Amino acid sequence: MTQAVALGEAARGQTAPNPNVGCVIVRNGEVVGRGATASGGRPHAEAEALSQAGSQAEGSTVYVTLEPCAHSSPRGPACADLLVAARPQRVIVALEDPDPRTTGRGIARLREAGIALDLGDGADEARHSMAGWLTRQRLGRPRVTLKLALSIDGKVALPSGESKWITGEDARAHVHLERAQSDMILVGRGTFLADSPKLDVRLPGLEERSPRRALLSRGEPVDGWEMLQSPQDVHRLHDVNDLLVEGGSVTATAFLNADLVDRILIYRAPIIVGEGKSSFGYIGLDAIADAHGRWRVSDGRALGVDRLEVYERVREA
Amino acid sequence: MTQAVALGEAARGQTAPNPNVGCVIVRNGEVVGRGATASGGRPHAEAEALSQAGSQAEGSTVYVTLEPCAHSSPRGPACADLLVAARPQRVIVALEDPDPRTTGRGIARLREAGIALDLGDGADEARHSMAGWLTRQRLGRPRVTLKLALSIDGKVALPSGESKWITGEDARAHVHLERAQSDMILVGRGTFLADSPKLDVRLPGLEERSPRRALLSRGEPVDGWEMLQSPQDVHRLHDVNDLLVEGGSVTATAFLNADLVDRILIYRAPIIVGEGKSSFGYIGLDAIADAHGRWRVSDGRALGVDRLEVYERVREA
Repeated sequence: MTQAVALGEAARGQTAPNPNVGCVIVRNGEVVGRGATASGGRPHAEAEALSQAGSQAEGSTVYVTLEPCAHSSPRGPACADLLVAARPQRVIVALEDPDPRTTGRGIARLREAGIALDLGDGADEARHSMAGWLTRQRLGRPRVTLKLALSIDGKVALPSGESKWITGEDARAHVHLERAQSDMILVGRGTFLADSPKLDVRLPGLEERSPRRALLSRGEPVDGWEMLQSPQDVHRLHDVNDLLVEGGSVTATAFLNADLVDRILIYRAPIIVGEGKSSFGYIGLDAIADAHGRWRVSDGRALGVDRLEVYERVREA
Repeated sequence: MTQAVALGEAARGQTAPNPNVGCVIVRNGEVVGRGATASGGRPHAEAEALSQAGSQAEGSTVYVTLEPCAHSSPRGPACADLLVAARPQRVIVALEDPDPRTTGRGIARLREAGIALDLGDGADEARHSMAGWLTRQRLGRPRVTLKLALSIDGKVALPSGESKWITGEDARAHVHLERAQSDMILVGRGTFLADSPKLDVRLPGLEERSPRRALLSRGEPVDGWEMLQSPQDVHRLHDVNDLLVEGGSVTATAFLNADLVDRILIYRAPIIVGEGKSSFGYIGLDAIADAHGRWRVSDGRALGVDRLEVYERVREA
């Protein structure tokens, strides 16, 4: 299942509006098929892995990170039907499809066909990898990740606006990886005018994975950029699982004020800026006590001399 | 040697102007004596451990974190002489005494007496534990540690000044441990007037270890507080190995501007403050490039929901 999750993870940012599913087929201890949701959402991971496995799928064990779909569409047959036809011995599913209209149907169809089915192996890893799509299922909008490069003292720039470079090459390469795994990147008009950022992916082999670009602005449309009038417009983005907000401070503050940030990536450099531009403006906080319990540290690691801090919004279930 | 370093570490903050040395004596695989520099600097660690070991020191192995002293004083005999008289088989020393007037003399006296001597085992750990005293030997002033409790975005308080509490209980307990291991704590007059902090140690069993208190101020002396007119006055503190600067922002900025900070402890809470008081004011930085290379991450760990980040000043040797 670890390998299936890794296949799905590698497809993150390319599969919207579909989930980034991974699938591995094993027969007699040997991998005979691998698949992930293709760019644009089709074919599904199971279809690709079954097509690789061919007749070797019979009697195999299939690992798949999400419950196989039970509905056929003009774009392809239901994966549950494909699996029944391929006659594996066992199917191991990490997560049930959270959509109440389909939950359990794919699983039921496999069990009715006499195929052994286990549910739950690798569920945490699968949930982590498909967090964008799962957020869209639960909240009707993309998962919003806010990215900032900050000093020890939380500054994004000098008073002059100079911010190149707070962080080093390893941290900046990691940002490009996060871009490659996002469906869309957004900046504010201030950042657009000041830096005219390309927001592309500059990693060997991933140049083709530069995501769609969006501008938070009520002003004139800009060629090649999608426009969001306000943070609430993320609810209109039905084909975006992961949205990366790259700044600046006004844009970040607007998303925080709308409580539309699910994850924060802080690339923290071991430098002190002192007087300079702060990360955020007023976010409606009147007492320190009210700031607690909203964010939890979910990851952290060294990136060269810098450090990545990952925070996730704590939301009641 | 690990145990000897731990004994010395437990005495940190109590031994100035002497170093916080640790000593363990082992005979036939059994510990027969333990010692650390006593409060106020005497007796030395070796004298205490030898006194515990008594006649069992003969033929033993002695672990000591710093080269034994070779000079007698009105307050006690030289440790090198005490060791020669006790006739151990072997003495293992982590660090040479860095004072050029005494370096190597204690070691030479032991070797001349026919005692086997190894140098360098556990040197890094010993250097880390005695960093305050070593800084005083090298720079003629205490090691200065700056402590701040910060939000993700580097704020120390709301615009109103409210800062209680940025961090949680585990982080605050760790601050009390750092206090117990400092010889002196300093705050600015602003913090003194606003919070009238006690700066005591509130940890079970360590209440007696509350360090001396100092105020950075050109104003009227305050009863029970030592006065420093400016950060440069740390050069007058000949009986302080470790100085802990607890704030506020004006005081921290003054120490940074004077390049008199050796270590920074950031207790980072997973909260966002937004508009609020920044950690530091202007520190003379005109380009981001100039901020790099001055600090390195030397430690980091979770403290409850918060995280301790330790930075050390990179100085040319």
